[in-house]
Amino acid sequence: MKEAEQAPIRALVVGAGAIGGFYGALLHGAGAEVSVVCRGEFDAVRERGYELASDRLGNRSFRPAQVLRSAGDYQGGAPDYLIVTLKVVEGLDRVALMRPAVGPHTVIVLIENGVEIEAEIAAAFPDNEVISALAFVQVSRTGPGRIRHFAFGDLNFGNYPSGVSERARRLAALLEAGGIRCPLTDKVAAARWQKALWNTVFNPISVLGGALDTAQILATAEGSAFVLEAMREVEAIAAATGHPLAPELAEQFIDATRKGPAYKTSMALDYENGRPMETEAIIGNVVRAAQREGVPAPRLASLYALLKMVERKSLPR
Amino acid sequence: MKEAEQAPIRALVVGAGAIGGFYGALLHGAGAEVSVVCRGEFDAVRERGYELASDRLGNRSFRPAQVLRSAGDYQGGAPDYLIVTLKVVEGLDRVALMRPAVGPHTVIVLIENGVEIEAEIAAAFPDNEVISALAFVQVSRTGPGRIRHFAFGDLNFGNYPSGVSERARRLAALLEAGGIRCPLTDKVAAARWQKALWNTVFNPISVLGGALDTAQILATAEGSAFVLEAMREVEAIAAATGHPLAPELAEQFIDATRKGPAYKTSMALDYENGRPMETEAIIGNVVRAAQREGVPAPRLASLYALLKMVERKSLPR
Repeated sequence: MKEAEQAPIRALVVGAGAIGGFYGALLHGAGAEVSVVCRGEFDAVRERGYELASDRLGNRSFRPAQVLRSAGDYQGGAPDYLIVTLKVVEGLDRVALMRPAVGPHTVIVLIENGVEIEAEIAAAFPDNEVISALAFVQVSRTGPGRIRHFAFGDLNFGNYPSGVSERARRLAALLEAGGIRCPLTDKVAAARWQKALWNTVFNPISVLGGALDTAQILATAEGSAFVLEAMREVEAIAAATGHPLAPELAEQFIDATRKGPAYKTSMALDYENGRPMETEAIIGNVVRAAQREGVPAPRLASLYALLKMVERKSLPR
Repeated sequence: MKEAEQAPIRALVVGAGAIGGFYGALLHGAGAEVSVVCRGEFDAVRERGYELASDRLGNRSFRPAQVLRSAGDYQGGAPDYLIVTLKVVEGLDRVALMRPAVGPHTVIVLIENGVEIEAEIAAAFPDNEVISALAFVQVSRTGPGRIRHFAFGDLNFGNYPSGVSERARRLAALLEAGGIRCPLTDKVAAARWQKALWNTVFNPISVLGGALDTAQILATAEGSAFVLEAMREVEAIAAATGHPLAPELAEQFIDATRKGPAYKTSMALDYENGRPMETEAIIGNVVRAAQREGVPAPRLASLYALLKMVERKSLPR
């Protein structure tokens, strides 16, 4: 007689593009039952699943347990983890896309860019555990269901608004079994502000300069000085929201960026490819936090105002 | 026996593009002997002269007395007026281009954009009278030696650093005989700051937003608010340099711009056409004045830093 098996952990990835497919593949590799909601590439993914090409993790392919057009089609009860890898852009109602699959015990895992992106979700699902996660990974979609992993992969997370639950640890253990590191933090909002120190400044500048890469942004003393001044504004806002950053961090970020390979930010790539940019998550929320806290942030406000003009011009309405 | 004729006033236009050709045609129409230094369109202008198409002033054509590749080729003694309509851009040595034709009695007339663009010229020619002039005109080049005049035409000027000389009045009389109005001012630097209130803000924004027109810049409440905030910085700098502006001017400018037809700034047109932009004259000098006077101008500094990045990326080196 067969021994009783522990039921596998069930994860549903909502918004399964490059990031969602990547972490889905890792969870699958660690034995989870992974399903996906993917609208754009539904047919290809249902037919062939995902193929992940990675020098560091090896090439992997996996077929999701369920490939769905909508979270409402998910079968077999609510998932243990609802992994949300949607872009945070205007006009995309994350709550509506998630709601049909959120059960009473579902942990909601937000792997998304930006600051202060969790409150809306926590308010919509007040009884659910919310994990807020920061992906440090370079992946891109190379075709339908095809993902190329270039570098990194770590997922840094903790519960929102703070703490690290047992179920967060279990998720970390799974992902680490899948091949990456998951540093846990009981202050995930502070971690988001730390990442925002870079993102809030480099992303908008890269777009406004005409899809510049990091080397072009830092090419002159004036450019580097402007980056640092704008970062000081992010620092002041983070501190006012109760998440002070180490004062040396800004210069360390600039230095590391200068020494690293030149690359284009996610926002510059979205801009070049005519895709919606995560303007609100990446800088709008930061500027609003500044206003709320009464912190002057004229450089960030300038970047935001200009970006809204670019967005209005370049995107179809 | 023929009566003694007064010798005509001799004017040499250096940098005879649309603006230079336009004012040259007016001076010619008023009886001045007008010569031009034009390098790009030398052959066409030597052969056929200028044709000015204007609904308001009528179509006019004129053949310059001398068409030159260099001011050093000017014959017959130094001109009475050296009309400088060069763009103020890095790498263009205005002094060197003017010097060969500047005689001891030559009045130098700068019809150029920007603020604080006269000091370099006054320092190079300390014994010459310098007139600083602001053109309120919409003209464009439609072909070699062909200029279309769309609207306005007034030339507002006075002596640099201040005052209105007899020779300034004589020039105004000539140009007014040619068909436009020339309001004279004994505070031309203040007039430049007044014009800068609009130029310093709308020009850079139009480029950074992706070659926006004025309507696109002012399309949202946030965009208009940003324009106003940036204008307040120009105001503070102008006041610190001793040229306070009327506080209602900024809102009047925005209002007039909103009510007028949508159009693209000169800087946006330069940007779209891959031509050098007048970044330093239009905003660099304003930001430097702010630094010199200790006036905070973070929005203008942001615009300037971004513009320098755009410039570096978009222009060949």
